[in-house]
Amino acid sequence: MLAEIITIGDELLIGQVIDTNSAFIAKQLNKIGVSVYQITSIQDDKQQILEALKAAERRVDIIICTGGLGPTKDDITKKTIAEYFNDILVKSDVVLKNIEDIWKQHVGTKLLQVNKDQALIPSKSHPLRNKLGTAPGIWIEKSEKVFISLPGVPYEMKALIDDEVIPKLKTKYKCPFILHKTMLVYGIGESALAAKIEDWENNLPKHIKLAYLPNLGKMRLRLSAKGNSEALIKREVAEQINKLIPLIKEEYAGVEDEDGAVEVIIAKQLLQLGCTLAVAESCTGGALAQCFTQHSGASAIFKGGLVTYATQSKIDILKVSKLDIEKYSVVSSSVAEAMAAQTRRMFKTDYAIATTGNAGPEKGDSNAEVGTVVIAIATKTKVYSQEFNFGNSRLKVITKAINKALEMLLKEIFKN
Amino acid sequence: MLAEIITIGDELLIGQVIDTNSAFIAKQLNKIGVSVYQITSIQDDKQQILEALKAAERRVDIIICTGGLGPTKDDITKKTIAEYFNDILVKSDVVLKNIEDIWKQHVGTKLLQVNKDQALIPSKSHPLRNKLGTAPGIWIEKSEKVFISLPGVPYEMKALIDDEVIPKLKTKYKCPFILHKTMLVYGIGESALAAKIEDWENNLPKHIKLAYLPNLGKMRLRLSAKGNSEALIKREVAEQINKLIPLIKEEYAGVEDEDGAVEVIIAKQLLQLGCTLAVAESCTGGALAQCFTQHSGASAIFKGGLVTYATQSKIDILKVSKLDIEKYSVVSSSVAEAMAAQTRRMFKTDYAIATTGNAGPEKGDSNAEVGTVVIAIATKTKVYSQEFNFGNSRLKVITKAINKALEMLLKEIFKN
Repeated sequence: MLAEIITIGDELLIGQVIDTNSAFIAKQLNKIGVSVYQITSIQDDKQQILEALKAAERRVDIIICTGGLGPTKDDITKKTIAEYFNDILVKSDVVLKNIEDIWKQHVGTKLLQVNKDQALIPSKSHPLRNKLGTAPGIWIEKSEKVFISLPGVPYEMKALIDDEVIPKLKTKYKCPFILHKTMLVYGIGESALAAKIEDWENNLPKHIKLAYLPNLGKMRLRLSAKGNSEALIKREVAEQINKLIPLIKEEYAGVEDEDGAVEVIIAKQLLQLGCTLAVAESCTGGALAQCFTQHSGASAIFKGGLVTYATQSKIDILKVSKLDIEKYSVVSSSVAEAMAAQTRRMFKTDYAIATTGNAGPEKGDSNAEVGTVVIAIATKTKVYSQEFNFGNSRLKVITKAINKALEMLLKEIFKN
Repeated sequence: MLAEIITIGDELLIGQVIDTNSAFIAKQLNKIGVSVYQITSIQDDKQQILEALKAAERRVDIIICTGGLGPTKDDITKKTIAEYFNDILVKSDVVLKNIEDIWKQHVGTKLLQVNKDQALIPSKSHPLRNKLGTAPGIWIEKSEKVFISLPGVPYEMKALIDDEVIPKLKTKYKCPFILHKTMLVYGIGESALAAKIEDWENNLPKHIKLAYLPNLGKMRLRLSAKGNSEALIKREVAEQINKLIPLIKEEYAGVEDEDGAVEVIIAKQLLQLGCTLAVAESCTGGALAQCFTQHSGASAIFKGGLVTYATQSKIDILKVSKLDIEKYSVVSSSVAEAMAAQTRRMFKTDYAIATTGNAGPEKGDSNAEVGTVVIAIATKTKVYSQEFNFGNSRLKVITKAINKALEMLLKEIFKN
């Protein structure tokens, strides 16, 4: 069963908004055995929408559009879809009722005509209930194909996918089982890794595909398989992973969680160990804390963090020695280790990570080269650090520093 | 002049990776007057790549592909492009030299054959120098059309776009001028705003397009115009903005910076006022600090932050009164205001923002409903706070809290 995602909106084509909807939809479709063949982003333009629908209908079974369902003049998806099906828009009482309920609950003022008009849907369509907004989703079947149109606002779209689209697709189609397993690998380049596992890769069964996903010091190695028997697919992939791990035992860090994040693996391990964590950040500026706090349940292991961005705040708040800063510079092992040790004490945690560095583009309070980052880890029994140079692009330096800090912590908590 | 971006990689179609490359490329193309007509994401599959190239060639003048240029077996873009042009791959000495230099600088070990093979490029192509990686960009002209293939690793792709692609496109084509101006609007819904500015919108000249971009409590209103005279386009758009602002003077917060962020407007204003900022975060968990620190030059105005995620850390580190927490709960005005005031003192700043709340999905240390967030602002002369409920989706609560905190600070520093 193949799907195409069509995201509609000028903001995507001028680069003002990054399309995050497609990845979410693709992930949810994969879980029920639907593969996404293509993702197409187009402008709010009638001709383009019509052409994209036609091309997608030739290629796939399920077409999911997002965007262009708002109440304003730039939103034309719904009437264009009606035109595509030689259909007219008719008022849906059930949709109008939902709009009135949402309006009463969230806005309170008198319902405007433009919002009432959002209850118009193609006569051949079934409405999908949007419990978070006034734009309904719509579902149209044509022969064996399904056309679905959803609002582009991410949280409305997500609720519609989970509550309406996925259950309906599962009822309509019998799909194969798709499995992705992603191994986290650290400290080796793409080509060196490929050379190391060449024989294993060449002997993979045809229906199990391998992909290399390098990303700033972190490598993900993904196995994807598809088949009718869930049990068989799971067993086959597990067997391949068991063969792979001994080949890369130095570099292997674990199987990535389904939610795709190494910090989730770390959080689970900390929870199991009954341990807690705090962070002190300079160059990473809050991003490391956010890595952990974005996931629900973080409070069980993450006690808090400090962003001591200014040098003075490292002295005032983290009690880093001013003399050490003068002697070794603010980007140094001495400072990073003091930050980690003091943070661990302040938050009364088992572990603390500290980052100090210069993300650029200009040299800051230290003489360290742009890209220099020192990362320290404090545990109950020791404090240690490593110095790196992560190049001269600001966001790259920040991302590499986070990846490396997570790698260091991962190794620390798994070796115990 | 029209372009299409084709992003290639199975990881995009299974939702493992969000395509951030397209938005960057689209933004850079817009700056030199090239419009992006479509973005297409496809798998690492020969037939799909060939079909996408063919379809794009019919639609546009400039085709930019990213991805699939790595040294491993799953990377097939280069040889597929050669096939598309009935071409063969030949060794480029200048590319090989670049690969050897990069290898020596970043890896140090002996160059592997798979990396040497990255110096093979279609005979009809010109290489584009990748100064950050071993995969060369390639540029092929066919009649008046240009085909460009770039690596998918974002920072390598970005450097190639800025250093190679944009300068070459500017030399080859004479393009019109494209202008986007985005106004930030707070505290009004999409349809109420549309009703308020309806007359103005109806009287916009045909070549100036309006778009509404609602996003979790923040609204962006974008004007886009295209024409041959940069001066004329700029004057016309400025005139429209001048007519618009009086209509929405209550809700209008400023023209969004070209880099697209309200925190950049805040940082500029703080710099101009000679003022500094610190933050204390509970439910936003580091994300508010990161908002500011992701931009270069942040250290001039941002002194640091605290992530007091655990209730105990609010007491230990921020000296919030334990009695107040017991009396008013940890999600309360009293606690938020104490956090902001103490943070301002600790970091010796002019302003401080504090957030405390429950992002869900479960109730935490307080009895506050999931979604309840209190945001406080401390200035030299006062401390105040507001309580909100941002619903029951964790990421939505965090994002809305950040948007609201930025809005409150924006209003505070611009009213002085």
